[in-house]
Amino acid sequence: MTRALSLALLLATAAAAQDVPQPGRWGAADQAGASNTQTPAKALQAARLIRTGRTYRLARPYEEAMPRFGTRSWTLTGTGGIAAGPIGDNKAVYNDDFLATQIGQVGTQIDALGHVGVLAGGEEVYYGGRKGSAVHGPAGLKALGVEHVGPFFTRGLLIDIEGYKDRVLPGGTEITVADLEGALRRQGIAPGSIGEGDVVIVHTGWGRYWQSDRARYLGPAPGIGLAAARWLAAKKVAIVGSDTIAVEVSPYPDPKLGMPVHVELIARNGIFLLEGVATEALARDRAWEFAFSYAPMAIVGATGAPGTALAIR
Amino acid sequence: MTRALSLALLLATAAAAQDVPQPGRWGAADQAGASNTQTPAKALQAARLIRTGRTYRLARPYEEAMPRFGTRSWTLTGTGGIAAGPIGDNKAVYNDDFLATQIGQVGTQIDALGHVGVLAGGEEVYYGGRKGSAVHGPAGLKALGVEHVGPFFTRGLLIDIEGYKDRVLPGGTEITVADLEGALRRQGIAPGSIGEGDVVIVHTGWGRYWQSDRARYLGPAPGIGLAAARWLAAKKVAIVGSDTIAVEVSPYPDPKLGMPVHVELIARNGIFLLEGVATEALARDRAWEFAFSYAPMAIVGATGAPGTALAIR
Amino acid sequence: MTRALSLALLLATAAAAQDVPQPGRWGAADQAGASNTQTPAKALQAARLIRTGRTYRLARPYEEAMPRFGTRSWTLTGTGGIAAGPIGDNKAVYNDDFLATQIGQVGTQIDALGHVGVLAGGEEVYYGGRKGSAVHGPAGLKALGVEHVGPFFTRGLLIDIEGYKDRVLPGGTEITVADLEGALRRQGIAPGSIGEGDVVIVHTGWGRYWQSDRARYLGPAPGIGLAAARWLAAKKVAIVGSDTIAVEVSPYPDPKLGMPVHVELIARNGIFLLEGVATEALARDRAWEFAFSYAPMAIVGATGAPGTALAIR
Amino acid sequence: MTRALSLALLLATAAAAQDVPQPGRWGAADQAGASNTQTPAKALQAARLIRTGRTYRLARPYEEAMPRFGTRSWTLTGTGGIAAGPIGDNKAVYNDDFLATQIGQVGTQIDALGHVGVLAGGEEVYYGGRKGSAVHGPAGLKALGVEHVGPFFTRGLLIDIEGYKDRVLPGGTEITVADLEGALRRQGIAPGSIGEGDVVIVHTGWGRYWQSDRARYLGPAPGIGLAAARWLAAKKVAIVGSDTIAVEVSPYPDPKLGMPVHVELIARNGIFLLEGVATEALARDRAWEFAFSYAPMAIVGATGAPGTALAIR
Repeated sequence: MTRALSLALLLATAAAAQDVPQPGRWGAADQAGASNTQTPAKALQAARLIRTGRTYRLARPYEEAMPRFGTRSWTLTGTGGIAAGPIGDNKAVYNDDFLATQIGQVGTQIDALGHVGVLAGGEEVYYGGRKGSAVHGPAGLKALGVEHVGPFFTRGLLIDIEGYKDRVLPGGTEITVADLEGALRRQGIAPGSIGEGDVVIVHTGWGRYWQSDRARYLGPAPGIGLAAARWLAAKKVAIVGSDTIAVEVSPYPDPKLGMPVHVELIARNGIFLLEGVATEALARDRAWEFAFSYAPMAIVGATGAPGTALAIR
Repeated sequence: MTRALSLALLLATAAAAQDVPQPGRWGAADQAGASNTQTPAKALQAARLIRTGRTYRLARPYEEAMPRFGTRSWTLTGTGGIAAGPIGDNKAVYNDDFLATQIGQVGTQIDALGHVGVLAGGEEVYYGGRKGSAVHGPAGLKALGVEHVGPFFTRGLLIDIEGYKDRVLPGGTEITVADLEGALRRQGIAPGSIGEGDVVIVHTGWGRYWQSDRARYLGPAPGIGLAAARWLAAKKVAIVGSDTIAVEVSPYPDPKLGMPVHVELIARNGIFLLEGVATEALARDRAWEFAFSYAPMAIVGATGAPGTALAIR
Repeated sequence: MTRALSLALLLATAAAAQDVPQPGRWGAADQAGASNTQTPAKALQAARLIRTGRTYRLARPYEEAMPRFGTRSWTLTGTGGIAAGPIGDNKAVYNDDFLATQIGQVGTQIDALGHVGVLAGGEEVYYGGRKGSAVHGPAGLKALGVEHVGPFFTRGLLIDIEGYKDRVLPGGTEITVADLEGALRRQGIAPGSIGEGDVVIVHTGWGRYWQSDRARYLGPAPGIGLAAARWLAAKKVAIVGSDTIAVEVSPYPDPKLGMPVHVELIARNGIFLLEGVATEALARDRAWEFAFSYAPMAIVGATGAPGTALAIR
Repeated sequence: MTRALSLALLLATAAAAQDVPQPGRWGAADQAGASNTQTPAKALQAARLIRTGRTYRLARPYEEAMPRFGTRSWTLTGTGGIAAGPIGDNKAVYNDDFLATQIGQVGTQIDALGHVGVLAGGEEVYYGGRKGSAVHGPAGLKALGVEHVGPFFTRGLLIDIEGYKDRVLPGGTEITVADLEGALRRQGIAPGSIGEGDVVIVHTGWGRYWQSDRARYLGPAPGIGLAAARWLAAKKVAIVGSDTIAVEVSPYPDPKLGMPVHVELIARNGIFLLEGVATEALARDRAWEFAFSYAPMAIVGATGAPGTALAIR
């Protein structure tokens, strides 16, 4: 082997190693990822952002009519007539219902750290360097499940790309670092003010297709690319959200890459994605900064949870 | 018919009519019930209660091992191996899961207004006087579903009955108005300070059986009775919660009555019940007063939702 | 009121009464319907039809890709990796799976007697005159569920309409009594030979769209009309099947009628429908007559069951 | 290395290799296993066994109350009120239901070839030598699913161990080859008459606990051991069934072995297990020999299917 060839091999190996998730700032045993940023100081900062008392639900209604990826299903069955009763002289009755769905991956939702990884050396590797065999289980995830995520009560920021661009970007358009910075400056927020533990939600306007045009909603969409993801990761945010199904631009401009923003934020940095966020009321009210409040449903072993977050300002 | 007899009949009819839910302070068309109390002023009041930045999850983990009423089931199935991938040169992979359960009635949960009613004149009557035929539907509730509930960002209060009594009350013990007042005074909170839109959570200590003794948890439990429920309803609270499965004392001391506290609060007053609340950390920290933050999962047509509330103080 | 008017009203009332299901030849308490025709004599007759030993599955594979009506879902989740193990020195392992679906109404399936009724006088009426309140239950049907259906081991007949017409009839084409008789005669079978307890399966050729064109499969389809249904009912057959989703012509030529063949056969005569039958191999082999063998999955309280029947000849 | 040691190692390796499933009489690509025994000659033999026309369902009703292993669930939800309607002037209505369950592993059921394997060299090995990675998939099994099983129309035999022993054997009792031979002789059937493609069902009497004592039913039970399994495998039967949950004796007398009869029959010989069979009517009627008719629900990718078989004699 020549020295030149062996150096090339070494570099390729190093690059590959860099791509594979490694133990990060919270160590190899960590399962909480960027939930670790949620300190009392952040909560007090969030409380100070509450000035009008106005609240905003960030999750859309959950129903069969919502756009769903691939063959994911949503079936809610009511008991139709009463489930039980009448009980007692007061003839009390009650109703029940039953839900069957890909609970962590439909509707507005957060991705847990065990949702995304990369295949390396014949086995998947997840956040913190955990191997697939240590993550997979028959009744859901054995590690990195959504029960380790949150709670969050912290500063939230809306970055209004639709307002900045004065239009909804076409599907497949990458939102760049310059876009994020430009939009923030338009909103009077210094990009440098984004700090550890903040929640950043990107409003693209794409949410208008949620119910009006489900096929379009699920198709090519605007979103952040790798550069913007790394810019946000460097700021140590806790969650990156958007009003699209994937947060990241889709399809990815470099066709050789599969979900690179998911991998970068979730698997390499422990930062959570909040997908399909209902952002329009925040954008309409120019609610750029708010307290972000969210305790994900702690479904033991699940790859995600419903995104029932609340913004208060 | 004698006059005496006809008067008795008249009174009995009047009493029955009083028992049947009627349109209340928000009118016959209302579906939000005590969610209507959630004003910006309440949110600002809640924000002012945040002094330490400490957060508390009020929902317990959701898993097969949790206590469940009757034949209710919880099955989370993971994809075990990867759901899809590797994708791209970066070999991204992802996992999914699937949940089948009585989503609105298992684990820590809130009851929607369509959960409980009474049979009157051959048909059920629900909150606001709605008839069963206007509420039932094959894919869940046509009206009074949980999608109309919340969000809540308001003053929360923990009433520590275990601390006040210095023990966990035996199953079947009714918590009275005097108990609530006595416990509040011990905590240095004036009972008269409970106001419209507040959330009141009763800590009994029963939550210790959640995992350690599921059969006991589901059996006879302490809880409030009708008098306490009416006392809370008169204060116009938004939610009444507890660390027991039913909030109300069980079995009910008057064996002729079926779930009377459910009927009184939900069906007659539009006040929500939050069941199976994780109260022990609040009690341990003497966190008697806090901001209560909660956006119930808006499952269209469901009789309840996971109780993923957050306390911040 | 004039006499003419009162007579018209009387006739209309009589007609309506005729339309509403009434107790029939097996009495008001019966829940088995045409299963009652399955006698040892029929089984012996069926056994004599087995001459080549060739078997045919009449149900198509059950999978997400199958055509489904409306919002019906099919989700099978595997444990992906092993569900449990290794166990013992021999390191045994096993896998599991989980299914969520409208079990009785997807894929090849049989309708139970509680599947279809008519609304009359403010309440539904089902087979034998049972009222809705006596049929509906929160955990499925309280009466007329599929657990009362079958088993069947009897003479089966394929009526090859595609062969008779030398083409697949267009969607919406009604198959008449003359069609059934003509097709039978072409097959060398005397229409008069159809007897009590026989199973009649109508091959239209529509099954070719099952996988190739699911939207077309679910759209307008050929099928029998009321006249043919009554002709079959008069012969006291046990089951009427077809390779279409509804057996009956769709949309029904008289737009004022809703699923009249379902109502006629199921609710008025207790005769079962077998829908989405895999008929092509029978038609290809000119397997006109066969032993029909079928024990429906006895799902207590279900409106139908998978149609896992077998033809042997 | 001494010759003695190397010989011992060689033998140990040979034994291990013998234990791991290998391609068998139908080759490495086979997915049908003992379904391959089902020939027209077997079907004709079965037809000749039908002498009285009496039919027997071999599957028990499917309901929440049935005994289930571990945390397996069964939830059937009806639409309660009508699912749709009234439709048309005839006011047709219909009902639906929804099922969520471990479909292939609850109630009377057949195991597919992908249900059981052994771990060898770090990966599972299944029937025919297939590796786990070639079998597992996120939406069920990629290979060896139950859609490849059956249909069966063949000679069925009941071996009445309860009758032979004149009692129900205690839990944990192994049924031996001598037991099977003795019971058959008592029934007047020559053990040597058991032939390729036959279905053998062992009646122990344990089925009486199915509903009366679910905990006992699921606990230690009598069943065949490895010797009996090999005796049956040598006769090339298609299915071995029993009225117990596991067919094999439980717990296994040799505590070092995990489900050895499952592994022997399914993974090494491609012979199917039919579990929880309703045998009491056959035993009562001394229905020792019958036509066994069964088309398993072809659930693509499932590890098993409901055992809706039929016996006709």
